[in-house]
Amino acid sequence: MSGYFTEDTSVDAVNSRMGPDVSPRLAKVMAALVRHLHEFAKEVELTEQEWEIGIDFLTRTGGICSPERQEFILLSDTLGFSMLVDAINNRRPEGATENTVFGPFHVEGAPVRAMGDSISLDGKGEPCVYEGRVLDLDGRPIAGAKIDVWCDNEDGFYDVQQPDVQPKWNNRGVFLTGPDGRYSFVGIKPVSYPIPDDGPVGQMLAALGRHPFRPAHMHYLVTAPGFEKLVTHTFVGGDPYLDSDTVFGVKKSLIARFEAVEGSGTRWRSPFDFVLTPAGGN
Amino acid sequence: MSGYFTEDTSVDAVNSRMGPDVSPRLAKVMAALVRHLHEFAKEVELTEQEWEIGIDFLTRTGGICSPERQEFILLSDTLGFSMLVDAINNRRPEGATENTVFGPFHVEGAPVRAMGDSISLDGKGEPCVYEGRVLDLDGRPIAGAKIDVWCDNEDGFYDVQQPDVQPKWNNRGVFLTGPDGRYSFVGIKPVSYPIPDDGPVGQMLAALGRHPFRPAHMHYLVTAPGFEKLVTHTFVGGDPYLDSDTVFGVKKSLIARFEAVEGSGTRWRSPFDFVLTPAGGN
Repeated sequence: MSGYFTEDTSVDAVNSRMGPDVSPRLAKVMAALVRHLHEFAKEVELTEQEWEIGIDFLTRTGGICSPERQEFILLSDTLGFSMLVDAINNRRPEGATENTVFGPFHVEGAPVRAMGDSISLDGKGEPCVYEGRVLDLDGRPIAGAKIDVWCDNEDGFYDVQQPDVQPKWNNRGVFLTGPDGRYSFVGIKPVSYPIPDDGPVGQMLAALGRHPFRPAHMHYLVTAPGFEKLVTHTFVGGDPYLDSDTVFGVKKSLIARFEAVEGSGTRWRSPFDFVLTPAGGN
Repeated sequence: MSGYFTEDTSVDAVNSRMGPDVSPRLAKVMAALVRHLHEFAKEVELTEQEWEIGIDFLTRTGGICSPERQEFILLSDTLGFSMLVDAINNRRPEGATENTVFGPFHVEGAPVRAMGDSISLDGKGEPCVYEGRVLDLDGRPIAGAKIDVWCDNEDGFYDVQQPDVQPKWNNRGVFLTGPDGRYSFVGIKPVSYPIPDDGPVGQMLAALGRHPFRPAHMHYLVTAPGFEKLVTHTFVGGDPYLDSDTVFGVKKSLIARFEAVEGSGTRWRSPFDFVLTPAGGN
């Protein structure tokens, strides 16, 4: 018998209530969650009015969710929680390409294209050649790696955000490496854009004096048999939001060079090698 | 410049992002919330699948909320968070009546009744005389105290949960004390009941091996000029759920006697004195 609830005994009062047949992992996670939530309230001596504000915030966050909008993920992202979970679950050895957040805009089933092809279907934006290799930790090329790429268009929107404006699969494509591990495709230099900030999360960011922007980036999902899945971006070097990505996705090692190609109008080249870790290997 | 986000620096990376003009209280509360959330994820090494389960749980909790149902409050209640906030904000000197959760079933504007009147309008349940005094910390009667009471009916439902079944204001009433500080009314002996458990919170309780019941209780909101508002219940002594109230509302000092009155069929008497603290006095 745990005794009745008091300020001092609150954590035990709640956690001792769990039944004997609860999954050990669930019991561990919930006990820790309850303890940290209670410690938070005690530390700041949360007022009843603040509690009401919190309940209202969560309720409005739930209310704006729809099949097209996931405000709780946005909340997790903007509190650095998504990146933390990503970091905890994707610790990699020195030299391996780092993970970053997956984001909500990946679409399964993008067209497989030949090396060198363009993924830009609307003719907008500044063309950029993306090229490099997919390697293992010893620097050997990985053949048969699947590189799934996607980015926003010149106006800062992914194709799925503008189904009536952009061609389907605009700025998306899948490339498969040959024996040399090399990849190459033509895309555009992506642009920075704000996350949806017309809801509760946008209000939170404003109250915290934070902007809603993400620095320009190209998304990559790189998979190969026998290797860990790599979910990452390359970021456009020099972007003004590199130091203040609103979802904390930037890692120094993921900032790529974007070199102006001479004699060809506005045209860029961005070299980047991806280094994969063996599956089950960390 | 805080540096890029890493597992080690995650808390600072997020909290250093706040702008210079943020309300100091908001900054303090959010910084603590972020720190505790991150510490939680690190401590249990939250997996990506568990993160997805959490996002889905919050989304479904938001999805079931409506003007008639507040699942986030239910979540806060069942995690002991509501009671903790209540405890933090209502510390009282020895001898004062303790607070407990307000609950979602209070209705403003219940009829003011004369002392001794009945609040049971449907003729169901076991009649019970509630009586006692409203006192200050020195044991002196408080005149002009307003006692707002409400409870469920014999079937475990408040009138507002059954607008087509129960008479309006069934088992509710407001009483005003005279110079002797005494109150007295006839109600019913309340019954234990489950909180709404057909949603995400009910699923959580089931997964944790917990039942959804609250022990039988009579709600009180006692106010008097110059005194702190008292939000509390009296609990029915002997109720089987006293040790396991699903919202952790029970305090030993709030368990009341329910004495069988002889020679009158099933009829009860429950004496309880309320002791108020001076306003602004703790």
